Amino acid sequence: MATSPYQQLEDEFRRLHAFRGALAILRWDAAVVMPRGSADVRGEQLAALETECHAILTSPKVSRLIERAQASVGSLEDWQVANLREMRRQRDHSLAMPNALISRLAKATARAEVHWAEARRTRRYADVAPHLAEVVALTRDRASLLGHHLGLDPYDALLDEFSPGMLTSAIDPLFKTLGRRLPALVQESLTLQATMPALPIEGKFSSSRQRALCVEAMKALGFPFERGRLDESEDSFTEGITGDLRVTTHFEAADPFQGLLAALHETGHALYQLGLPLEWRDQPVGRSRGLALEESQSLLLEMCVVRSRPFLTYLRPMLERHLGAAGPAWEVENLYRLFTRVHASPLRIDADELTYLSHVLLRYDLEQQLISGQLAAVDLADAWNAAAESRLGVRPQDDVDGCLQDDHWAGGQFGYFPAHALGGLIAMQLWEALRNDVEDLDAAIARGDFSALNGWLRTNVHGVGARSNVQDLVKDATGHALSALPALRYLEAKYLEPR
Amino acid sequence: MATSPYQQLEDEFRRLHAFRGALAILRWDAAVVMPRGSADVRGEQLAALETECHAILTSPKVSRLIERAQASVGSLEDWQVANLREMRRQRDHSLAMPNALISRLAKATARAEVHWAEARRTRRYADVAPHLAEVVALTRDRASLLGHHLGLDPYDALLDEFSPGMLTSAIDPLFKTLGRRLPALVQESLTLQATMPALPIEGKFSSSRQRALCVEAMKALGFPFERGRLDESEDSFTEGITGDLRVTTHFEAADPFQGLLAALHETGHALYQLGLPLEWRDQPVGRSRGLALEESQSLLLEMCVVRSRPFLTYLRPMLERHLGAAGPAWEVENLYRLFTRVHASPLRIDADELTYLSHVLLRYDLEQQLISGQLAAVDLADAWNAAAESRLGVRPQDDVDGCLQDDHWAGGQFGYFPAHALGGLIAMQLWEALRNDVEDLDAAIARGDFSALNGWLRTNVHGVGARSNVQDLVKDATGHALSALPALRYLEAKYLEPR
Repeated sequence: MATSPYQQLEDEFRRLHAFRGALAILRWDAAVVMPRGSADVRGEQLAALETECHAILTSPKVSRLIERAQASVGSLEDWQVANLREMRRQRDHSLAMPNALISRLAKATARAEVHWAEARRTRRYADVAPHLAEVVALTRDRASLLGHHLGLDPYDALLDEFSPGMLTSAIDPLFKTLGRRLPALVQESLTLQATMPALPIEGKFSSSRQRALCVEAMKALGFPFERGRLDESEDSFTEGITGDLRVTTHFEAADPFQGLLAALHETGHALYQLGLPLEWRDQPVGRSRGLALEESQSLLLEMCVVRSRPFLTYLRPMLERHLGAAGPAWEVENLYRLFTRVHASPLRIDADELTYLSHVLLRYDLEQQLISGQLAAVDLADAWNAAAESRLGVRPQDDVDGCLQDDHWAGGQFGYFPAHALGGLIAMQLWEALRNDVEDLDAAIARGDFSALNGWLRTNVHGVGARSNVQDLVKDATGHALSALPALRYLEAKYLEPR
Repeated sequence: MATSPYQQLEDEFRRLHAFRGALAILRWDAAVVMPRGSADVRGEQLAALETECHAILTSPKVSRLIERAQASVGSLEDWQVANLREMRRQRDHSLAMPNALISRLAKATARAEVHWAEARRTRRYADVAPHLAEVVALTRDRASLLGHHLGLDPYDALLDEFSPGMLTSAIDPLFKTLGRRLPALVQESLTLQATMPALPIEGKFSSSRQRALCVEAMKALGFPFERGRLDESEDSFTEGITGDLRVTTHFEAADPFQGLLAALHETGHALYQLGLPLEWRDQPVGRSRGLALEESQSLLLEMCVVRSRPFLTYLRPMLERHLGAAGPAWEVENLYRLFTRVHASPLRIDADELTYLSHVLLRYDLEQQLISGQLAAVDLADAWNAAAESRLGVRPQDDVDGCLQDDHWAGGQFGYFPAHALGGLIAMQLWEALRNDVEDLDAAIARGDFSALNGWLRTNVHGVGARSNVQDLVKDATGHALSALPALRYLEAKYLEPR
């Protein structure tokens, strides 16, 4: 019996999924175990596999099959229709990019990244400005082409790569509402927290003890160590696929919470992957709904669940057992103060739940202006400093504390940052609904029972896969359209709590 | 400017090399770090990559390019001509196998391996005999097809897969000469060694101390830890490619030499990979010349270099430092007796340098008879037991000690074992020549200077890549055709040494 065009497409995307899984393991290997000198041969392997993935998506065969499957879409079931839509989406994104532009951009970003590091040494943005200008110019070309292909405005086309369907028309009102309240909220919380000092944690904690603590907490939260690993790497991340999930973190002897919080943040990512619809695991519709939703799952776990009194109540005896916690600094209330401390810093990497949002809003404004041409790359440093003053309330001392702090733009990553604030908004709205739906959630968390939490997320978020767009998913899960109001309610309650 | 057909072929094989490198890392990962539950998703990734490699080699495009490059072979340089020959060899092997047969064989071997394990539990070969018969029948079909395609007899075609060019016409006289002397030599050495008892090593040695010892010895021998790793796995092996070499071993607390000898055996493999011609590293001519030559390099290092008095003289202070060696059992002469002990055992895994050769000769006879049809699979156990008695001088107590000891045949691996005895013969002939060419070799080894050793091997063996066949390589390196006589000289001197 002949296989239908749709079934043939599933076979092609199954192959694509296998290659992407291989890529994930090779990237994990490069970050965790690869000998330092092997980067060049690894680069060849990654490039060959990425080229093959691109070749599958852009092959005439796949396009022909998509058209033929579309012609008999009436015979498909709902999930298959959604899968076909996601196949087309991936094909469209790949097909829009001519190889010549990809290659020019790869060279320009490689140059810009080198000069970026150099400019950080001289502490002068001017030293890299022309190179960033080149990357911006090529990215504008890329965005135009992509937008033309997808029927989107250029900047929207870039956003769509990271968080499908989350376009400026959806983001602008959310960020506007948020941005109006944030600067004052940060100042108010700083003033309040100045009256509530926290005792610092003292001592040194070996990696093996910190690791044992992480493993116990991750197991309780549902991380499947029989099909996953926890390792150390310079930056924490989650790689792999459902069935082989690899989380990394980084332990600091003097700060036992940095490694734990990073590991549990990543566990949120891993649990999302784990909860994706298993029967669609090797098809586009069974994969992640994009970066904003992914971030919502890591932030919900880290910020809403872990940085809370109930979780700290559960964690407290584990801290005793693994780290020998004793004394007033280790009391739940003191730890909660440490876990919710707001930092007024010009640096994103120093940010907390609250100020992180402002850092993202600043970048969202500026990258839109760069892509539209409203802001020239040469003027970035001044624009950054002005924005930092109004958004964050602090003026960077120099460019390293200002626009040189992240090299994402030098690497051509535009449209990436907004997903992190969107993830926060989604997390806080889901959290509000979850608390309404699940009875006695705090008590369950305090005794280490995360089954109701995970069950709600699996039903309402993880199990949906890429079947719905983010807005519909949030509306179905919470009963309301995505909005900044739940976030503001959550943040005000958490950071202006009278204590 | 248009690229020549030959240059296009190099591009295709560069891509193939990148995929094979990715496969190597994925296999290493599966054996060393992969969570146990992830075998199924890893299987999908490996299958997708192997299918892609097969697709490249069997594509009409590659065949067309090979014909066109062949037509203008006069314009190519020597290395390119050899490279084109190796490309064609790989293409021919891949093209000869119809997918339907590959798939039937895969199913038959999967069944046979399951029943093999079951038969080991019941200790009765009869329980797996029909399943092995099926694998043999399909392998005979495979050998015929392959032979027809390559212009070789069926069994020669199987040999050619593992050790190109080492066919029965070359192997028979070597193994006949060796086989005539071996049984008596084993008995004579056993009689002699009975008069020379060795003190056993006592104590427990942690993995971390054993590891530190291995790392120091491997570094001294030239293993590049900046582009390679040493890890632990159930069976020791070498994976990866030049530029990212991954050696594994297995530590036993009560036996500090098992892990060390396995690691240094594998280091021989790694140094061969490392010494392959760098400018051809991603082309067939720059890769290994097959299993027999690979084994010659691990055996030369383990058997000729490491299991020697000069090396033990070098190792002795390291054993003190890492393992706290002290007392008469740790004296060089006692260690040398332990390192050269001959074992009369029906089991290959218990074999030593000398008896290993007999184990291989036994398997070579029997697998030839199975493939020719002279021996029916149902009669294997009896034939094995008779051969063990005459070749090894011991009759297996039951089938687990006899023909059930290795599951290679159940897995369809015919033509694999001979390479291990050939590797030994090649190693011993190279070693004789090397000792003639390099002055004061023993003194250099005793002080841990392996530069002259490595230099000779790199020039005469490693650096040749797949440019020559094994026989020409050996003749060029030693001045003589490959023969069993250097091996017999070496073995008699080592195992009948009057002490």
